Amino acid sequence: MKTKTLLTTCALSASLLSTPQGHAKELIHDADHYVLKAQHAEQWAKDDKAVDSKLAEFKKSNNGKPPNIFYILIDDMGYGDMGIPELNSIRGYSTANVNKFSDQAMRLNRMYTEPSCTPTRCAFMTGRQPYRYGMGDTAVDISGFGLPAKEVTLAEVLSEAGYATTHIGKWHMGDIKEAWPNHQGFDYAAFPIHQQGQLTIFNDDASKEGVAVSIGPGQYKETFTKDKWFRPDGSAMAVGVEGKKGENVREVGMKPGERWTEAKYDELNQRYQDQAVEHLRKLAKQDKPFFLQYWPIIPLSAPRHTTEIYNTPNGGTYTEKMELLDRWIGDLMKEMDDLGVADNTIVIIMGDNGHFTKYSPQSGYTPMIFKGGKGYTTEGGVRVDAFVRWPGMIAADSIVADIFNVSDFYTTLARLAGAMDKLPTDRLIDGVDQSALLLEGETKGRRDTVYIYSGNKMEAIVKEHLKLKVPEPGENAILASFYDLQRDTREENPVSTEIGAWGGAEFTRIIQRHMMRKKKYPDEPAAFGKPYEGIDNLRPETKAAVEAFLIKSKVHEQ
Amino acid sequence: MKTKTLLTTCALSASLLSTPQGHAKELIHDADHYVLKAQHAEQWAKDDKAVDSKLAEFKKSNNGKPPNIFYILIDDMGYGDMGIPELNSIRGYSTANVNKFSDQAMRLNRMYTEPSCTPTRCAFMTGRQPYRYGMGDTAVDISGFGLPAKEVTLAEVLSEAGYATTHIGKWHMGDIKEAWPNHQGFDYAAFPIHQQGQLTIFNDDASKEGVAVSIGPGQYKETFTKDKWFRPDGSAMAVGVEGKKGENVREVGMKPGERWTEAKYDELNQRYQDQAVEHLRKLAKQDKPFFLQYWPIIPLSAPRHTTEIYNTPNGGTYTEKMELLDRWIGDLMKEMDDLGVADNTIVIIMGDNGHFTKYSPQSGYTPMIFKGGKGYTTEGGVRVDAFVRWPGMIAADSIVADIFNVSDFYTTLARLAGAMDKLPTDRLIDGVDQSALLLEGETKGRRDTVYIYSGNKMEAIVKEHLKLKVPEPGENAILASFYDLQRDTREENPVSTEIGAWGGAEFTRIIQRHMMRKKKYPDEPAAFGKPYEGIDNLRPETKAAVEAFLIKSKVHEQ
Repeated sequence: MKTKTLLTTCALSASLLSTPQGHAKELIHDADHYVLKAQHAEQWAKDDKAVDSKLAEFKKSNNGKPPNIFYILIDDMGYGDMGIPELNSIRGYSTANVNKFSDQAMRLNRMYTEPSCTPTRCAFMTGRQPYRYGMGDTAVDISGFGLPAKEVTLAEVLSEAGYATTHIGKWHMGDIKEAWPNHQGFDYAAFPIHQQGQLTIFNDDASKEGVAVSIGPGQYKETFTKDKWFRPDGSAMAVGVEGKKGENVREVGMKPGERWTEAKYDELNQRYQDQAVEHLRKLAKQDKPFFLQYWPIIPLSAPRHTTEIYNTPNGGTYTEKMELLDRWIGDLMKEMDDLGVADNTIVIIMGDNGHFTKYSPQSGYTPMIFKGGKGYTTEGGVRVDAFVRWPGMIAADSIVADIFNVSDFYTTLARLAGAMDKLPTDRLIDGVDQSALLLEGETKGRRDTVYIYSGNKMEAIVKEHLKLKVPEPGENAILASFYDLQRDTREENPVSTEIGAWGGAEFTRIIQRHMMRKKKYPDEPAAFGKPYEGIDNLRPETKAAVEAFLIKSKVHEQ
Repeated sequence: MKTKTLLTTCALSASLLSTPQGHAKELIHDADHYVLKAQHAEQWAKDDKAVDSKLAEFKKSNNGKPPNIFYILIDDMGYGDMGIPELNSIRGYSTANVNKFSDQAMRLNRMYTEPSCTPTRCAFMTGRQPYRYGMGDTAVDISGFGLPAKEVTLAEVLSEAGYATTHIGKWHMGDIKEAWPNHQGFDYAAFPIHQQGQLTIFNDDASKEGVAVSIGPGQYKETFTKDKWFRPDGSAMAVGVEGKKGENVREVGMKPGERWTEAKYDELNQRYQDQAVEHLRKLAKQDKPFFLQYWPIIPLSAPRHTTEIYNTPNGGTYTEKMELLDRWIGDLMKEMDDLGVADNTIVIIMGDNGHFTKYSPQSGYTPMIFKGGKGYTTEGGVRVDAFVRWPGMIAADSIVADIFNVSDFYTTLARLAGAMDKLPTDRLIDGVDQSALLLEGETKGRRDTVYIYSGNKMEAIVKEHLKLKVPEPGENAILASFYDLQRDTREENPVSTEIGAWGGAEFTRIIQRHMMRKKKYPDEPAAFGKPYEGIDNLRPETKAAVEAFLIKSKVHEQ
């Protein structure tokens, strides 16, 4: 009852606040945003004025145009893997170019992502946590679901605001047409339909090395294999596709009957790097501002024990590829300088979630600072390196400890691009506007709470530096584990009695408020459809794989 | 047999090498030094020439004098606690002054100490690992043993070479006269006889807070307490003493009957800081080069749950004191600038071992990068932050990944001070000369092996980035745990089969070589004696405590 009243009060005072930038309707946020807003509205309004004035000045100096946006999202890189030379040195490799970039950028030192690839990428694109539209889980093979068309992506928002938009590299939000970047707001997209699970494990080289178990050559004998559709054939699945906005895509680099190999994986990665350079050049020449996404697939590679290159003292299969990627990033940054777009472009480099600890230590990585990695809701799964550069606008070589959620980029970039009026106001948006943090600095963040989900299940709540591991159903709440994340970064020393005694009830109310918001704005399912529809040149084996998938999907109807 | 031959060969080729700096006799080192020397003698000779030439140039520019040395050793600070702003930010405090210092210094990124206070401090002072002279263990209360007079300390070496030498702060190498700094080479010393165990736990405030259990007011009732000597009384033990070389010391700050309190602990710390400043000024004015040691007792403090100051977001009792210490270090660095000695002084700032995890998380610290803390032989116990500054001579803002042992400073500082001929050549010296690393940079280190002991027991061997946890007696060597420290910084993913298959035999030979050296240069016991002899103004209660100790020490003779 008390909670309900509180929410009503918040909603009331929210409606009393002036709308920033003449935005027609208020964005709808999650509960705890209003708790902060009720306390800080006046200061936020002041900060907003300062932000608006800086943005106006920038626009004036940039021929009336908002900044370009270049977003580099790196796969499975945990906190501390890039940008801290001391930690590079401990591990025996160097991300020299990202380190240099970090000196020019603001480090968002408490960047929270989702605990795995698909959810993080969805949260960035939609500004909404993925459980709200059934995208909390990741699929590796043919699956027939994906990001719903009715989600309004940042690419759509920026397109509408006049940006040229391009996506290069990993996408991983489904194998159905409506989920794909060229149907989700990008003018052009080059991307693999699936992700490195298929690309690095479902191939014959990986089978021969024993990385893939029980699939591929040398891994099983057909004598007792009745169900020929049981094992995926990576070579039969669709691989890299490319296409323009609203049009069908075409698969590249694979002929009918051709096998997918590690060499082809390397080629595909090189292709994306080359395309990132090519499109950067193309976009820089256009009159429109641009939004370029480059989501490399490496450093992830087959988790082999050996590597053909051995340039780093570490020599892990991922660290070797990380150095390659770092050189590629260096090339891109140099290209920006050469093109003269370094100063009017916001560049973001970040990881999408922690390491995949399954491949430790031969990958070269293990969780170092935080506990756990990809797939875990401990900090090691959801805290990543994140840097934002905007020369003259965002303080170079700065570090901010304010909490940031990857979904906040959706709202914040829309604000910085002058596209707030293009954001949807008919649904709950998790991403809050963090422009003041970026432009005005530490303590100006507008978030103190993160709801950490695994799939559709809330597993932890972070508020300030306190973290509650949400008790399992039936677990006695008195035993719920609270952690002090500053004093115990690895969540190993619960202070449950000390914090629980006062925080237990308050955290319960945080959960209640959040759940009540979910009742008002209910979760919906992902989009479902026929895999690969919208690829013009499907190979016969790919068609067969889809047919098999469809039959398997319908056997319950027999 | 093979091993013996190898050693003979090494010894032979060693004798063929030219003696650096006209040193009369070669230093005697542990086995693996000669394995490296046999492979790198030629390069080392070249590097030595470069080093000698740089040192000669420096001396010329410094009025014919070698550099001053200022050594700040911080208690229980694990790797990453100082000098990396990103990690400061994660934990919610700032070591702004050490961070600034780190930008001016070389970070020894693989500094290995011993796993606790006494052994590390002994290793630094003597250049020899502490098991060689019975100082592998730590004592907190009255114990009647300490560092033997016949050890040749760096203070004695530098004194003989014409340095003025001063020690301020923690010493912790025994409560017998011969062990004390003013009898071990220092012209002047101000130090507590014991350490923070007594100073922060054996006091009435700690008892009242429940930090000390079963001693002090409110912690026990005498009804069934027959042995009045069972519990230590911190207030009766000797506290801070001060004195000149070879003379008796005097206890300061305690009157007979007075109780030791937390306030008095704070006073003592402030006193040491003031004395560090005072002696820095005094030494800077002298014509002699100086060797000043400042070994603060804070950040260690009573592991209370509350703190009277709350300046940091973290608020842990140790992090608060760490910020205080950081300000003090800032004051000292500024003082050096003001005195004009910043340029001709080598300044070293480092920790002595990992955190004491017993007090996590209320201390504000837990192991973050490596596994374990103080007392453990995992990297978290023995890897620390370490910075060396020497403007114009040592590359500023550099990071080197070469292995360094705290004992190496003994030999290295003697070399940099032009005092190699004062080092003893009648005993095994663990510390190798790392001058080339400091002056010529990364990869020039002369160590690839560390023998990690706990007390008198060898627990682990590090060679390159590989670490063997030495099997327990009777444990099957096939199960011995090997770790790849670059790919698995936290020693959680043993690669025993992968490395053991080739490294097992080689590591066995490393241990054999080391043990054969120990047979040639056998371990000896610590020095034993009457506690506190050599303190002029012992309080009556202190005398009584010593009497009780002596009776207890001799009951076996009844």
